[in-house]
Amino acid sequence: MERLRQKIVTLLSDFGLRGSYVAEMKAIIMNKCPEARIVDVTHEIDKFDIRMGAFVLASGAPYFPDGTVHVAVVDPGVGTSRRPIVVESSRCFFVGPDNGVLMLAALKEGLRHVYAIENTQYMLPRISKTFHGRDVFAPTAAYLAKGLAAPEFGSEIKDYVVPTFSKPCLKDNAISGEILHIDDFGNIITNITLDFLDKVNVCESQFITVEIAKEAARLKFCSAYGDVSRNEALVLVGSHDFLEVSVNQGSAAERFRAKRGDSVLVWR
Amino acid sequence: MERLRQKIVTLLSDFGLRGSYVAEMKAIIMNKCPEARIVDVTHEIDKFDIRMGAFVLASGAPYFPDGTVHVAVVDPGVGTSRRPIVVESSRCFFVGPDNGVLMLAALKEGLRHVYAIENTQYMLPRISKTFHGRDVFAPTAAYLAKGLAAPEFGSEIKDYVVPTFSKPCLKDNAISGEILHIDDFGNIITNITLDFLDKVNVCESQFITVEIAKEAARLKFCSAYGDVSRNEALVLVGSHDFLEVSVNQGSAAERFRAKRGDSVLVWR
Amino acid sequence: MERLRQKIVTLLSDFGLRGSYVAEMKAIIMNKCPEARIVDVTHEIDKFDIRMGAFVLASGAPYFPDGTVHVAVVDPGVGTSRRPIVVESSRCFFVGPDNGVLMLAALKEGLRHVYAIENTQYMLPRISKTFHGRDVFAPTAAYLAKGLAAPEFGSEIKDYVVPTFSKPCLKDNAISGEILHIDDFGNIITNITLDFLDKVNVCESQFITVEIAKEAARLKFCSAYGDVSRNEALVLVGSHDFLEVSVNQGSAAERFRAKRGDSVLVWR
Repeated sequence: MERLRQKIVTLLSDFGLRGSYVAEMKAIIMNKCPEARIVDVTHEIDKFDIRMGAFVLASGAPYFPDGTVHVAVVDPGVGTSRRPIVVESSRCFFVGPDNGVLMLAALKEGLRHVYAIENTQYMLPRISKTFHGRDVFAPTAAYLAKGLAAPEFGSEIKDYVVPTFSKPCLKDNAISGEILHIDDFGNIITNITLDFLDKVNVCESQFITVEIAKEAARLKFCSAYGDVSRNEALVLVGSHDFLEVSVNQGSAAERFRAKRGDSVLVWR
Repeated sequence: MERLRQKIVTLLSDFGLRGSYVAEMKAIIMNKCPEARIVDVTHEIDKFDIRMGAFVLASGAPYFPDGTVHVAVVDPGVGTSRRPIVVESSRCFFVGPDNGVLMLAALKEGLRHVYAIENTQYMLPRISKTFHGRDVFAPTAAYLAKGLAAPEFGSEIKDYVVPTFSKPCLKDNAISGEILHIDDFGNIITNITLDFLDKVNVCESQFITVEIAKEAARLKFCSAYGDVSRNEALVLVGSHDFLEVSVNQGSAAERFRAKRGDSVLVWR
Repeated sequence: MERLRQKIVTLLSDFGLRGSYVAEMKAIIMNKCPEARIVDVTHEIDKFDIRMGAFVLASGAPYFPDGTVHVAVVDPGVGTSRRPIVVESSRCFFVGPDNGVLMLAALKEGLRHVYAIENTQYMLPRISKTFHGRDVFAPTAAYLAKGLAAPEFGSEIKDYVVPTFSKPCLKDNAISGEILHIDDFGNIITNITLDFLDKVNVCESQFITVEIAKEAARLKFCSAYGDVSRNEALVLVGSHDFLEVSVNQGSAAERFRAKRGDSVLVWR
């Protein structure tokens, strides 16, 4: 297959873009696997925010070709006892710290095996305790892209960290959920999926009530942002299949003074 | 020709870089056209600002090789009745919403044909109403880069949207124009071109008067920012051939409290 | 060698990412050297801050393969008499203005020759006085990546600018240094290297006193950020071998109200 000829490595981190950290990772990958194609997912994850990193990785990873190697470095525990790991899913690889940042994406794709990265021959000769992105994760990704089998990096582990992301639940005739993510437009992305909306008999073009941070609003359930007037609030099922609260050409996060983790209640 | 071997796809949007939206577009392009070279123009267009998107695309596109496919997604009307289009110019392609964002660049290069994107076989199997960048524009760009002819995507249209960008005019012995763009340095880029400056007999190394937002200043017409002292204001013809008001190593936008759309008056 | 087949061009600038300046440079390079691989180091250098540009380039460059062409454009004097130059080090090339921005990296790698870029046949046909990144430096980098020898661009010069970066010194039993850089996490990176720490008999796991901007704190000398509790300050030797003042999962720059250039005093 044509696409199998590509060796894609994606990078996600909370490093920001003002320094050379990201470029150093890319340099290591190009040194060890010149044929790798490197794609940035984002380097603007809020510092140390493992949940945001896990959410963004899980949003983007499904669209990449089979065999892609995804590196995600949101790593407050770098240099301590937390392990570096390789995760093998049914169709690709994830490389990063064992703190949960890889797991939402890996579980979505079908997690197969998790290996501790222990074999120093695939790391840089000198390993800092502050920058495993460059010294451990980048070379691991390069060797995976070159075709090295995941078990070569170290022993399989079963006690890896799985982050707990809250799931929505039914409370009387309402759905109780929370805010997973606020995107750059200020769209509020909740953890509420379509099947839950069915359970409370909510469907498109109706009005529904959404309560965020104790404030309730009656909003139209639309299919596109432009289905209401400019600056009007709405709800819809967004491009990643979660219920989203938005303002047409405006910021719902500002309107509702919402932040990630806030609870959301939805009823007819 | 060597450069014809390249299949370049450029991306411009107002998506920002904090989430996975841009990476999802790239993943789709790499899936469908692995040999495409993807280049970011910018993803920091002000949200929903079609004029800024059109200006930045028109600034950057002329430097790319023949055959480049430019995707621009500043799309407040996504999912509504506004059409997705392919524009064929004399030497390259533009893909995006029919709201004007593509047209400044396409007209500059010589617009040939505009086609509605209608043929669903070149879109993702499931098309969201909130993210045509990923579901419609990215696959279209990939197929164009692979060599599919533009008429394959849908029927030719003639009633496409052309944005009105104000042109400067002469008023007595002054040029009346407006601010097209403020760059990251705070340089104020006006819509006044060289031929207008000739008409009022203004030429380099003279002093001229510039009035922005009702405040007038007598400024030296320079050829380089460093032709005046540090923190001194000046005017020059910038790298895109528009009259630019600048401050050497400072921000003219702050100095003149200027914003895009403000009117500008220039006289000897 | 496999890696020698790569033609890598890195880009660093203070252009920011909101406009098309960076894309225009990339377009020129792709036009003239289609086989070049272009990697962004950063475009978020503080405007006109040659020292920050020099520091970030010197941090990132050592990790790139032999033969890499590094372009760095922090160029307050663009269009004036400052010369555009090519620097040949023992293993790669640097292209940019003769204002010192290239020199920290070039000296680290072993500077061999410096050439003025004078030969207009390797520049764009029309050279603006405001954007040498596109008109002079990008085509120079492309021709270097293609294999053109550095002396082809112009005559060798010896009177190039070398920036003065302060070096730490011993004062009684303390090390007197300054802040070189503050990274995106708020880590304070000083100019104090390991050999100086040896001279005052400081070693890991001890407590040492650090005085920044006249305020002293007694901090643990750690090897990883996570060696202290969350929000606790520490010192360590960072990934570029400089003494770094940090706060575990917080911003040391905020805690110590520190900025680049501030003096730092360290004693046992």
